[in-house]
Amino acid sequence: MEELTRMFQAHPSGQHGRDNVELIHELVMCEAACVICADACLSEQDVTMLAACIAANYDCADACAATSRMLGRVAHMQPSILRSQLEACREACRVCAEECEKHEHEHCRICAEMCRRCEQACSRALDTMMVTA
Amino acid sequence: MEELTRMFQAHPSGQHGRDNVELIHELVMCEAACVICADACLSEQDVTMLAACIAANYDCADACAATSRMLGRVAHMQPSILRSQLEACREACRVCAEECEKHEHEHCRICAEMCRRCEQACSRALDTMMVTA
Amino acid sequence: MEELTRMFQAHPSGQHGRDNVELIHELVMCEAACVICADACLSEQDVTMLAACIAANYDCADACAATSRMLGRVAHMQPSILRSQLEACREACRVCAEECEKHEHEHCRICAEMCRRCEQACSRALDTMMVTA
Amino acid sequence: MEELTRMFQAHPSGQHGRDNVELIHELVMCEAACVICADACLSEQDVTMLAACIAANYDCADACAATSRMLGRVAHMQPSILRSQLEACREACRVCAEECEKHEHEHCRICAEMCRRCEQACSRALDTMMVTA
Repeated sequence: MEELTRMFQAHPSGQHGRDNVELIHELVMCEAACVICADACLSEQDVTMLAACIAANYDCADACAATSRMLGRVAHMQPSILRSQLEACREACRVCAEECEKHEHEHCRICAEMCRRCEQACSRALDTMMVTA
Repeated sequence: MEELTRMFQAHPSGQHGRDNVELIHELVMCEAACVICADACLSEQDVTMLAACIAANYDCADACAATSRMLGRVAHMQPSILRSQLEACREACRVCAEECEKHEHEHCRICAEMCRRCEQACSRALDTMMVTA
Repeated sequence: MEELTRMFQAHPSGQHGRDNVELIHELVMCEAACVICADACLSEQDVTMLAACIAANYDCADACAATSRMLGRVAHMQPSILRSQLEACREACRVCAEECEKHEHEHCRICAEMCRRCEQACSRALDTMMVTA
Repeated sequence: MEELTRMFQAHPSGQHGRDNVELIHELVMCEAACVICADACLSEQDVTMLAACIAANYDCADACAATSRMLGRVAHMQPSILRSQLEACREACRVCAEECEKHEHEHCRICAEMCRRCEQACSRALDTMMVTA
C-alpha cells in the first residue's frame, strides 16, 4: 500500500488520492475474496443451497473491480459517477455479506467479514464526499 | 444477439433474461466504444484538452462491464444491487456523453451517441424494475 | 458494429483497427454468453457435475474481457502483449468449449458454439499477426 | 492477505491456493498501480510523450485483472489456461515496466518497480507449474 501512497504523492494532481489508498486496498482484496468464496462454494456438497451466494460473490467482485479502478483516476474524478458507483458497491458488499452470513462454511464467514469491512469503507468514503461536496 | 436470447430461453430460470439481451448488447458495445475513443483521444494533438474525456471513457467502460455481467446472472439477480449498479452506469454514460460532446473529433461524436443510447437503455431498465418491483 | 468501424476510421492512427471490429464483437459476445451459461448451470439440478464448466465459463469470460480491451487500443498496440493474450484467450475458449460440449444442456451447447467461433477468430488474428510481423 | 490464506485453508479443495495468495496480491496491487500511473501520466505536461506508457498501463492492468481472477478459482483450475494467461501477464508487466522506465516521473518509477515484481512473480509461478506438471 505504501507504493500506491507514494504514487499519489508523485501524481501532479494526486493530493486527494492518498485518502483512497486504503479503500482501493479493501476493494481489491474483497474482489479476490469473493472469487475465492465462489470457487470454494462450488466445491461444497450443498452447492445448490449456495447458488445465490455464488452469484452475489460475483456481483460484489464486479462492483468492487469497477469502483477500485475509478478511485485510481483521481485527477479527472467525476464526483457524480464515483458517488453512484460507491453506492452500488456498498449495496453489493452488503448483500454479499448477508448471503455469506447464511452459511456456516468458514470461507463464507471470512468473505462476509471482508464484505462488511468494504461496505463500511464505501460508507465512510460517501460520507466524506458529502462533506467536501 | 439471437444466441444470447436462445441461451436465456434454455436457462432453467431465464425467462426474465430475454429482456436483458438488448441492454447487455448496448453495454458491451458502449464499453468497446469507450476504450476505442480513449485510444483515439490519446492519438490526437490536443490530448491535454482530452484528458477528462479519456478518464470519463474508462469510468464508463468499467461501469458498463460490471453492469453487463450482473445482467447475465438473471437466475440469482439481486434487485437492489442491479438497480444501484444501473444508476451508476446511467450516470457514467451521461457524463461520458457530455465530455465527448465537448469535442469535435468524429470518434468522440460516435462515442457520445453510443453512451446516450446506453444511458437511455439503463433508464428504461430502471423504469421497468420500478414497475415490476 | 458499424459504429466501431466508423470510430476506427475517425481514429488518427486507427487504420489497423477496422480489422479488429469483428473479433472485438466475438469476444464481448462470448464473454456475455459465458456469464449466462455459468448462471444457467448454477440453476440446473446437476450443478455439482457442472462445477468445472462454471469455472471454465468465468476463465473464458475474463480472458475475453482482457483481450477485447487490448484490441481497442490500436494506436499504441504492443504486438508481444497482444499475441500472448490472444493465445491465452484462444486456449480459454477452447477449454470452455470442451467443457460445455460434455453437457447436454442447450445453454451449454450454444455457449460451446460461441466459444469455438471465438477460438477460431483468435486463431485467425494470430495468423495475420505472424504474417504482418 | 492472511484472510485469503485462511479462505484457501477453509476451501474444500484449496490446498494449492495458499501458494497463490502472494501472487494474487502482487497482481491486484500492480493493476491498481497501473491505473494510477495512467491517470498521473494524463496530468503531466508531456502527455503526448506518455501515450504509449498510458496504453501499456491499461494493457497490464487488464492482464493482471484476468490473471488474479483465474488464480482465485483454484478448485477447478485449468492448467493450460492459467499457464498461457500467466505468460500473457508476464509479458504485459515486462513491457509496461520497460515503458515506465523510459520516463523520469516518480509515479512511472514506482509503477515500473511494481510491474517488475509482478513479472517475476508470474515467472516463479510458471516455473513451479512446469515442475509440478
